[in-house]
Amino acid sequence: MTPPAAFPSFLVHYQARIADALDKLVPAEDLPPEQVHRAMRYVLLAPSKRVRGALALMAADVCGNEERAAGAASVAELIHASSLVLDDLPCMDDASLRRGQPSCHVLFGEATALLASFALLNLAFRTLTRVYEDHLAAKLVTLFSDTVGTTGLIGGQADDLLATDQAITFERLERIHRLKTGVLFSAAATGGALAAGATPAQVHALSAYAKNLGLAFQIIDDLLDVEGDPAATGKGTGRDSTHRKATFPAIFGVEASRQRADELVAEALAAIAAFGPEADPLRNLARFVGCRRR
Amino acid sequence: MTPPAAFPSFLVHYQARIADALDKLVPAEDLPPEQVHRAMRYVLLAPSKRVRGALALMAADVCGNEERAAGAASVAELIHASSLVLDDLPCMDDASLRRGQPSCHVLFGEATALLASFALLNLAFRTLTRVYEDHLAAKLVTLFSDTVGTTGLIGGQADDLLATDQAITFERLERIHRLKTGVLFSAAATGGALAAGATPAQVHALSAYAKNLGLAFQIIDDLLDVEGDPAATGKGTGRDSTHRKATFPAIFGVEASRQRADELVAEALAAIAAFGPEADPLRNLARFVGCRRR
Repeated sequence: MTPPAAFPSFLVHYQARIADALDKLVPAEDLPPEQVHRAMRYVLLAPSKRVRGALALMAADVCGNEERAAGAASVAELIHASSLVLDDLPCMDDASLRRGQPSCHVLFGEATALLASFALLNLAFRTLTRVYEDHLAAKLVTLFSDTVGTTGLIGGQADDLLATDQAITFERLERIHRLKTGVLFSAAATGGALAAGATPAQVHALSAYAKNLGLAFQIIDDLLDVEGDPAATGKGTGRDSTHRKATFPAIFGVEASRQRADELVAEALAAIAAFGPEADPLRNLARFVGCRRR
Repeated sequence: MTPPAAFPSFLVHYQARIADALDKLVPAEDLPPEQVHRAMRYVLLAPSKRVRGALALMAADVCGNEERAAGAASVAELIHASSLVLDDLPCMDDASLRRGQPSCHVLFGEATALLASFALLNLAFRTLTRVYEDHLAAKLVTLFSDTVGTTGLIGGQADDLLATDQAITFERLERIHRLKTGVLFSAAATGGALAAGATPAQVHALSAYAKNLGLAFQIIDDLLDVEGDPAATGKGTGRDSTHRKATFPAIFGVEASRQRADELVAEALAAIAAFGPEADPLRNLARFVGCRRR
């Protein structure tokens, strides 16, 4: 599937590379268990911005070796896809639409969706040892499992569920958003950089860039839920307030949220200021995230 | 928690070692996200036979180096615990009792149970890169992710859900049981052996032993569901027939199922016939599985 034309041209090159890599990773739909493979492909190959995968490739580009980063890019997308299926389930956020299409469990049933979600996470680790030599594979298994675990995505989702309907501080909401989005953005960039043989200084700068960008991305996601055009976002607007989720605009107002997102984009750009034109795709991505309306 | 006194003495030594290793792996219950850590510990540290973990330690023993196998034993138990939480969910087998206690989702709610199940699988991979040097860690990530994936546990559970209420062949039911139980038994023994520096011939024999034992174990599980004492099995009897699951005794009769289990135990013992007294714990385990009433 080709991404919709609305994606900016600088992203399309990366999206196509990632889609190709992902397509080869998941077994064909006619191999058993057919319904699980079908559900995995449905979620993974749906048109998507592929921001996490693109971050891995762009970070590797900065380090002069984009070729080696397709594995890390795929793994970031696999983990993201797994988490989307999980978050949409009735016992979690109970979302029936995702990227303008029925959610995985709506189309395939809860049992198959759950198995697909586990299989996507599991395939992420399998991919690392298939693609990379042992030393790098082990380092990336550590990086990505720390990203998924109870001090990462899982911890963020757990706290997000608890924070529903509660008064919440700015710090706690930022922490939830950092865990739910920032850590995987950061791991994608770090993973791409490590695959490309980055220096520690390069990894440090790229990781800081991605962490700030991830938080900005999540705040803007919240803003789009309030302000956005449902046809463009692919979700109903006001979904978060219906579920009384803790969001930036609901708690701190639209203006303060927009301002915080702008600050974070600026911090992301500052983190990579020392790089030359090889980091221009990352700069474009930061501006795209800052201005996005979908 | 100490295992109930009913476990045979040859297993208790292994159970204690595994319980110690597992206790150190999961963060404390008072660290956030508290409810997820609590659910993980509830499932992982409940009194259990720990057959999979014991297999890893016993296999390593045969290769003369039990010390190195605690990581592989823990990983087999982490993956097993993750799969139990998943299988018990309402959209899967809908089981409210496990090991005589309320299932994880009954006690903690579905959302927390699901996050705990993901976190346990994720922790399995994290443990491998924490415990072992890169080369061995990468090999074991490959082994265990193949064991979990759509040609392993996930494939078995998917086909098991489909096979409900359908006419089923002997071959298909054996395949489901091999995927649901045999592959993880085999991976546990293989993982323990690899950690202990086994030769390919040792790995081959131990893996064949464990694969056959796993299938026997599952058939006997089905038999206990029909014949067993619920106070001893910790599950209601007749649960499988209530859910119209495809089981050996339901489809081929109690006698034929018992006979097939005996054959498989004999095949397991034959696979390790070349080993000396260092394989006696494995022989005891095979006899225990063949005769178990819980």
